[in-house]
Amino acid sequence: MNFSFEVKATDPTGARRGRLTTPHGKVETPFFMPVGTAATVKGLTQSALEDLGAEIILSNTYHLYLRPGHELIHRLGGLHRFMSWPRAILTDSGGFQVFSLSELRKITDEGVRFRSHLDGSEHLLTPEKAVEIQLARGSDIAMVLDECIETPAPRGAAESAVDRTTAWAKRARKQFLKCAAPNTDLPQWQFGIVQGATFADLRRQSARQLVDIDFPGYAVGGLAVGEPHDLTCEMTGVATADLPKEKLRYLMGVGRPEQIADYVALGIDMMDCVLPTRAARHACLYTSEGRVLIKNARYAEDQRPVDPSCSCAICKRYTRAYLRHVFAAGEITAAILGTHHNVHFYLDIMRQIREAIEFGNLAKFSSAIRARYAAGPA
Amino acid sequence: MNFSFEVKATDPTGARRGRLTTPHGKVETPFFMPVGTAATVKGLTQSALEDLGAEIILSNTYHLYLRPGHELIHRLGGLHRFMSWPRAILTDSGGFQVFSLSELRKITDEGVRFRSHLDGSEHLLTPEKAVEIQLARGSDIAMVLDECIETPAPRGAAESAVDRTTAWAKRARKQFLKCAAPNTDLPQWQFGIVQGATFADLRRQSARQLVDIDFPGYAVGGLAVGEPHDLTCEMTGVATADLPKEKLRYLMGVGRPEQIADYVALGIDMMDCVLPTRAARHACLYTSEGRVLIKNARYAEDQRPVDPSCSCAICKRYTRAYLRHVFAAGEITAAILGTHHNVHFYLDIMRQIREAIEFGNLAKFSSAIRARYAAGPA
Repeated sequence: MNFSFEVKATDPTGARRGRLTTPHGKVETPFFMPVGTAATVKGLTQSALEDLGAEIILSNTYHLYLRPGHELIHRLGGLHRFMSWPRAILTDSGGFQVFSLSELRKITDEGVRFRSHLDGSEHLLTPEKAVEIQLARGSDIAMVLDECIETPAPRGAAESAVDRTTAWAKRARKQFLKCAAPNTDLPQWQFGIVQGATFADLRRQSARQLVDIDFPGYAVGGLAVGEPHDLTCEMTGVATADLPKEKLRYLMGVGRPEQIADYVALGIDMMDCVLPTRAARHACLYTSEGRVLIKNARYAEDQRPVDPSCSCAICKRYTRAYLRHVFAAGEITAAILGTHHNVHFYLDIMRQIREAIEFGNLAKFSSAIRARYAAGPA
Repeated sequence: MNFSFEVKATDPTGARRGRLTTPHGKVETPFFMPVGTAATVKGLTQSALEDLGAEIILSNTYHLYLRPGHELIHRLGGLHRFMSWPRAILTDSGGFQVFSLSELRKITDEGVRFRSHLDGSEHLLTPEKAVEIQLARGSDIAMVLDECIETPAPRGAAESAVDRTTAWAKRARKQFLKCAAPNTDLPQWQFGIVQGATFADLRRQSARQLVDIDFPGYAVGGLAVGEPHDLTCEMTGVATADLPKEKLRYLMGVGRPEQIADYVALGIDMMDCVLPTRAARHACLYTSEGRVLIKNARYAEDQRPVDPSCSCAICKRYTRAYLRHVFAAGEITAAILGTHHNVHFYLDIMRQIREAIEFGNLAKFSSAIRARYAAGPA
C-alpha cells in the first residue's frame, strides 16, 4: 500500500487532523499546497520550498501540457525528476485553466476543444486525455476533468454541468483504472470533483454521484470564485456532509489567510491557492497582524521585520525598509523575498491549525485570525 | 589599522595573489565583485551570495542616490545594515551611470548636472558630493568621481577628461580626508580612477597624477567599452606599470570569462561586471566548456547539468532540460537559477586564478579557458 490516509484527531468544529502517505513522502493534514504552475513555484527554488517545509505542491496540467509537453516530461522520468522535487505533487486536470485562459473553447460531451493561449494551436482535452497526461507526468494525486462554470450560474447551467462532471468522472475513473491496472501498487491517487455551483441540492447530488464512482479522495470545485464567503462555506459544508469521513477532502483554489480555518472546520483536509505567491509579487505581504502593503511610504524607514512574530528567513534578516526599497525598485529579489515570506506564512498557518485541532481549539484560532485581518493592512 | 592589503605571491605573468582586509572581513585577491546595483544582486538573496562565497559586492551610487536616497540609508545605519550584508562593499561614484543613464547631463568643472532617469528631477553631482554620499552609505571602498568619455575619443577630449579627472580626484581626496579626519580609523578606503581613453601617454599621465595625490588603491576606468581586447590589455598594462605595487589595482567593468585571467596577468587585483548576472537573465550560462544558450531547442531533453564539472547547487540539482523549460516559460525562477550558476562560475574562475598564481601557472590557465571559449557555445 503506497498511498494511505488516516484521520488521527478531530476538533469540536468538525476539523480533522491526519496524515496522507504518498510514494513521495508523508503529508500532514490539513495542508496547503503552494502552486507551481509551470513546474516551478514562481520565485522559489525547490531547495527553498524544502527549507520552508512544503510537503506537497500543486502543478498545473494545462501549462505543462502546452509547454514543454507531458510526453517530454514522461521521457525525462516524470514530473518529480524533471523539476527535481522529491516530495509529493498534485496535478489538476487542466480544465480550470482551459476555461479561464484559453481561447475559443467549445465544450461538448466529448470534452473541451480549445486554442492554446501561447500559440493558438488547437487541442481537445477529454476526461481520458486528462488522465493520460497526469499519469505520464507521474504526479501523486491527479484530478478528474470537470466542467467549471461561471457563478452566479443559472440553475439549468449548473444542473447540466453536474451531469457532465459526473459522466466525465465515470469515464476518467474507468480510464484511470484501465491504465493503472498493470500495477499492483497504484501509481497515483485520482480524485473526483464536486460541482453544483451555489445550489445545495446539486452539490449533494454531485457528491453522492461521485461517491458512487468511488474515488480515494474528493475535491469541491467551482467555489470561492466571487460568491460571498458565507456561501462558499455553506456549499462546502453541504458537499462534505455527503463525502466519506475516511477519505481526503480538497477545497480547490482557496483561500485568504483569515478564511482557511473556516474551511478546515468544515472538514476540509487540503487547499491550494496562488494568493500567497501572486500577492507577494504584488507587494502584499501576509503577517500575523494582517496584510502589509510593503510599498507604502510609511515603511520607508521602518526597521522592523515584516512580521515581528514570524520565524522565516526573510523576517530574521531584512527590515520593512529594505523590502519596501527592493519592491519600489522593481527588483527580482523583491519577488523572491516576498514569496518566501508569504509561503512561510501560509505553511505556518497550517501548522498552527493542525496544532489547534490537536488541542481541540480551532474555533478560537479561527476567530483570532479573522479579527486581526478584519482590521485591514497594518 | 582596519584596512590593509598584502601581496602574498606573484606569478611569472605579473599576476599578484594577496589579501585585502576590511572592517567587513577579508577578501582574497584577485577577486571579482558581483554587481548589486540597487542594494541587491538581481536574482540572488544575500544568503545565496554568502553561500556562493562572495566576500565583496559592488553597489551603485547613482541608483541608491535617487532611490531610496543616501540620507535614508545613513539614518538606517548604512548600506551594510540596510541590505543586511555583513561582508565588504565597494561603491562607485555614480559618475558612470550619470553618463550612461541620466538625461540632459551637463559637465562643468564644478561637477555633472543631470536629470534623474526615474522622475526627471535635476541633480548636481560634484566630486565632494560623491564622497559625502559614499561616506553616508558606509561602503568599505569608495570611488572618486571621474569624467567618463565615449571611445574612440578624439585626443583633445581625452586630454581634458584626464585633466578634469585629476582635478576632481584632488577635490575628492581633500573632501574625504576632511570628512574622515575625526576618525582614527579610516571609515573607508577611497580609490582614484585612471582615465586617458586609448592614449598610452595620457594613461601614464593620469596614473602618475593620481599617485601623487596618494590613494590607498587605484582603478583603471573607461576601458572595455567597445575597443578591442588587445587594446584594453595594452592600456591596462600601461596604467598598472605606473601604479605602486603595494596598492590595490581595480579594472572597472570587466570582463568576459576568457578575458579575466589576462587582466589578472597585468597585475589587476579586482574587477566587477554585470555580465554574469545580466547574461543569466538572458539565458546565457557560462560553463567550463564555454557559453550555453540554454533556451536552445537542443537542450529540451538534455538530462545533464548545465556544466557537468560545476559544483554549484544548480548543477547538482537541475538538468539542462528543466532550465531550458523555466527560461522558455519566462519564469522568475529561471533568473534565480541562472544567476546563481553564473555568479558561482565567476567566483570559481577567480578561485582557480588565485590557485594558478600560487602555483605560478596562470598563463597556462589563461590559454586553456580562452581555447574553450573560442569554440563558441556548446
